[in-house]
Amino acid sequence: MEQMQLLSRIACGDGHGENSSFFDGWKAYDSDPYHPTNNPHGVIQMGLAENQLSLDLVEKWVSENPQASICSPEGLHHFKDTALFQDYHGLQQFTQAVARFMEKVRGDRVRFDPTRIVMSGGATGAQETLAFCLADPGEALLVPTPYYPGNDRDLTWRTGLKLVPVECHSSDDFKLTRQALESAFAAAKKSDIRVKGLLLNNPSNPLGTVLDRETLIESLNFANDKNIHLICDEIYSATVFKRPGFVSIAEIVQDAIAGAGDCHYNLDLIHIIYSLSKDLGFPGFRVGIIYSYNDAVVACARKMSSFGLVSTQTQRLVAAMLSDEAFVEGFLAESARRLGRRRAMVAEGLAAVGVGSLPGNAGLYCWMDLRKLLKSATFDAELELWHVIIHEVKLNVSPGASFHCAEPGWFRVCFANMDDATAMVALERINAFVARRREIEIDIARKKQWRRGGKLEISLSFRRLKDEMMMSSLSPHSPMSSPLVRARN
Amino acid sequence: MEQMQLLSRIACGDGHGENSSFFDGWKAYDSDPYHPTNNPHGVIQMGLAENQLSLDLVEKWVSENPQASICSPEGLHHFKDTALFQDYHGLQQFTQAVARFMEKVRGDRVRFDPTRIVMSGGATGAQETLAFCLADPGEALLVPTPYYPGNDRDLTWRTGLKLVPVECHSSDDFKLTRQALESAFAAAKKSDIRVKGLLLNNPSNPLGTVLDRETLIESLNFANDKNIHLICDEIYSATVFKRPGFVSIAEIVQDAIAGAGDCHYNLDLIHIIYSLSKDLGFPGFRVGIIYSYNDAVVACARKMSSFGLVSTQTQRLVAAMLSDEAFVEGFLAESARRLGRRRAMVAEGLAAVGVGSLPGNAGLYCWMDLRKLLKSATFDAELELWHVIIHEVKLNVSPGASFHCAEPGWFRVCFANMDDATAMVALERINAFVARRREIEIDIARKKQWRRGGKLEISLSFRRLKDEMMMSSLSPHSPMSSPLVRARN
Repeated sequence: MEQMQLLSRIACGDGHGENSSFFDGWKAYDSDPYHPTNNPHGVIQMGLAENQLSLDLVEKWVSENPQASICSPEGLHHFKDTALFQDYHGLQQFTQAVARFMEKVRGDRVRFDPTRIVMSGGATGAQETLAFCLADPGEALLVPTPYYPGNDRDLTWRTGLKLVPVECHSSDDFKLTRQALESAFAAAKKSDIRVKGLLLNNPSNPLGTVLDRETLIESLNFANDKNIHLICDEIYSATVFKRPGFVSIAEIVQDAIAGAGDCHYNLDLIHIIYSLSKDLGFPGFRVGIIYSYNDAVVACARKMSSFGLVSTQTQRLVAAMLSDEAFVEGFLAESARRLGRRRAMVAEGLAAVGVGSLPGNAGLYCWMDLRKLLKSATFDAELELWHVIIHEVKLNVSPGASFHCAEPGWFRVCFANMDDATAMVALERINAFVARRREIEIDIARKKQWRRGGKLEISLSFRRLKDEMMMSSLSPHSPMSSPLVRARN
Repeated sequence: MEQMQLLSRIACGDGHGENSSFFDGWKAYDSDPYHPTNNPHGVIQMGLAENQLSLDLVEKWVSENPQASICSPEGLHHFKDTALFQDYHGLQQFTQAVARFMEKVRGDRVRFDPTRIVMSGGATGAQETLAFCLADPGEALLVPTPYYPGNDRDLTWRTGLKLVPVECHSSDDFKLTRQALESAFAAAKKSDIRVKGLLLNNPSNPLGTVLDRETLIESLNFANDKNIHLICDEIYSATVFKRPGFVSIAEIVQDAIAGAGDCHYNLDLIHIIYSLSKDLGFPGFRVGIIYSYNDAVVACARKMSSFGLVSTQTQRLVAAMLSDEAFVEGFLAESARRLGRRRAMVAEGLAAVGVGSLPGNAGLYCWMDLRKLLKSATFDAELELWHVIIHEVKLNVSPGASFHCAEPGWFRVCFANMDDATAMVALERINAFVARRREIEIDIARKKQWRRGGKLEISLSFRRLKDEMMMSSLSPHSPMSSPLVRARN
């Protein structure tokens, strides 16, 4: 019998990344999940960028709009046609409603053409589809660091593409610069890697920040100059909760077109990735979107969408929901308010115990700075600290290394996948941990002095925050009043 | 500026196949769709393997089971958890219900392990996922002809795989033989193409036949001897409407395991593709399944399923529906009855005008033999005849060449995507067309004689069939009483 590898190289390799050590936190959570009464000492899941804060608004809308479901007496007459519909253009009302929603999220300052909306299986499918359209195996995309770890799976695993990091640094609040772009591009070229595009994540996961207009324009100029694609992943666009507001690449494009004379950008290079999983909080429904200004990419991505179409049952529900403009406007405002409140609670809770985090205005997470707690400024020390946080503090946060961060000591802390009470428990644990750490690390003499002053101060400050939060959670606008702990398999 | 190809080779190539001439029929239908009253001379769509005959049973179940929907008052308490659930293992009740359904379809003669059920975006996604798991670019799968044209897109487009045809012939009712397999395998080897697997489609699209136990065992022996994978695409398994019944590869496996001593097959080589789109008639819901006996393939395919998960809204509906065993049993029996009745109507309608079709017992189509109507035994002549059928007879059937059939003159005729009345109109058109053809083709003298005899006989026979059908459609068991014409885009 001929000796040969039975499976593909993809199946035999580890390009998916799930076997990396970064999944240890998930394993710890899965084996010992926190529950306020059943398992109060369990691990709290803060590694999941899930938006649960306003799902009650979605649920309320669904309960008030039975006609939106093909399974209700009011919507059943659509059942057959919907069940049979498999056209990869999608239901017309779905693409129209999604385009309109994308406009609303961008403050109605831009227009989206529904015929350019291409469906995919979540942002995961959208990223891969676009990668298959834009580049060949061995070619690369530039990606500013830190970046979402799933990019490696989505953009490279089955496509054979490479990601070339563009290093951003804390000294500059991780801002993307032209110099960093040029430097990464040159490095790739030197290694004989053809760069085919630049991927921007705006708002950023894990930073929780938005790209400003100047950076977007600079990035677009860069892509245009190099004749490479600019992919803007805007899946967190509706999580922006305070100024400066979100600027979509679509606005830059529209401004350029509306400007004097011809648009000097090659629009064929510009593409947007979108999804409803984060902004509306229903990742289970698998609604991913590719929006491209390039006709050939729209046509090709649409053909590829056959591998991950959105269920028509879900298309119809989403179409009806997003066509309700009053609901959409109310949801966007209230969701932003709740996210802002939760973010403030977490950032202030951390600050109260002297832990910094990157100032941000978006996302379902904050970027926590624990550099001062590292034994040394290395990723080994970061990993060591992370294991302590998981196994002793019992919080599953995500280490910066998993986001390809260039500097050790940063951690992503997700805060929108839990209720207020759980968030408070998490902050209390961090408070206690930081206090313990300080006790251990300073010498006895300074420790005594610090105990009388510093620690007391921190504890008082933290207690004040806690009291405020508890007061506030009694208000009728509190997003959740009961513990929300789910068994994720 | 550096000159380079802006998009990928995949995007610039035509591996998708949609631009092939075989889409002419779809275009003709799209631009002039038949409607009994609004457009009675339009094109009837017989190129779509869609199962509409028993969707009313599904709809009825949905109307009677509001708790199955997360959008109903009875099911709304599941809304949040379902909307948030994105675990690629799927909802447990979903994988259990699908496994149970697969058992029921196979007459409860086999067991399926729910933990081996992997989701995908329809059979389209399932085929591609499995291809990505099993083989590397340039490697090949053997596929008996004629085969489903979508295989080229699903198995080769983005994966870089090749398909090597295994030629089957009408002289043998297109039966697959060991000799044909060996010959295709040897030919590939001679061309330095590494064969990695054999894909069987059982029941066959387009043949409408099932593979018998001996052929399945022979195929499994072949795969095992060569140490290549055996992929069984069983997406039409519940469309079998008469004896000989359907034999799944799962039965062969189970028998082998249960047999004396060790199973001599390498189970790591055996994989099943499944879907609910054909058997239950809801392609819009995008429920595809990979079932593998190979643990590594299950694990890898599950990771890949992130690119095309089934919407949890749909998972929950399907789980509830397929858990209702009384419904499932009733549906399977009634659906088979209706398909058998429609198939008989079409086959008899064709036979009545002297048109043959391959004897079959499954599928949503029959394999029509128009070899006698070809000007010459060539694919050019087939294409010419096809264009006449589309543009003059106004039926969008599919030519054998699009299925990689080795012999010209065969056409796939789909019959389950329409109501009885439309099917009758289609048969009338074929009747008239065949009659006209004969008039033209025979010489005047013989034509006169034939007119008095043959044609009259055909017309009478056809009229008798029509009367029978009309009578039967008045019965309370008629699947559809009103015209069912949908606007597809």
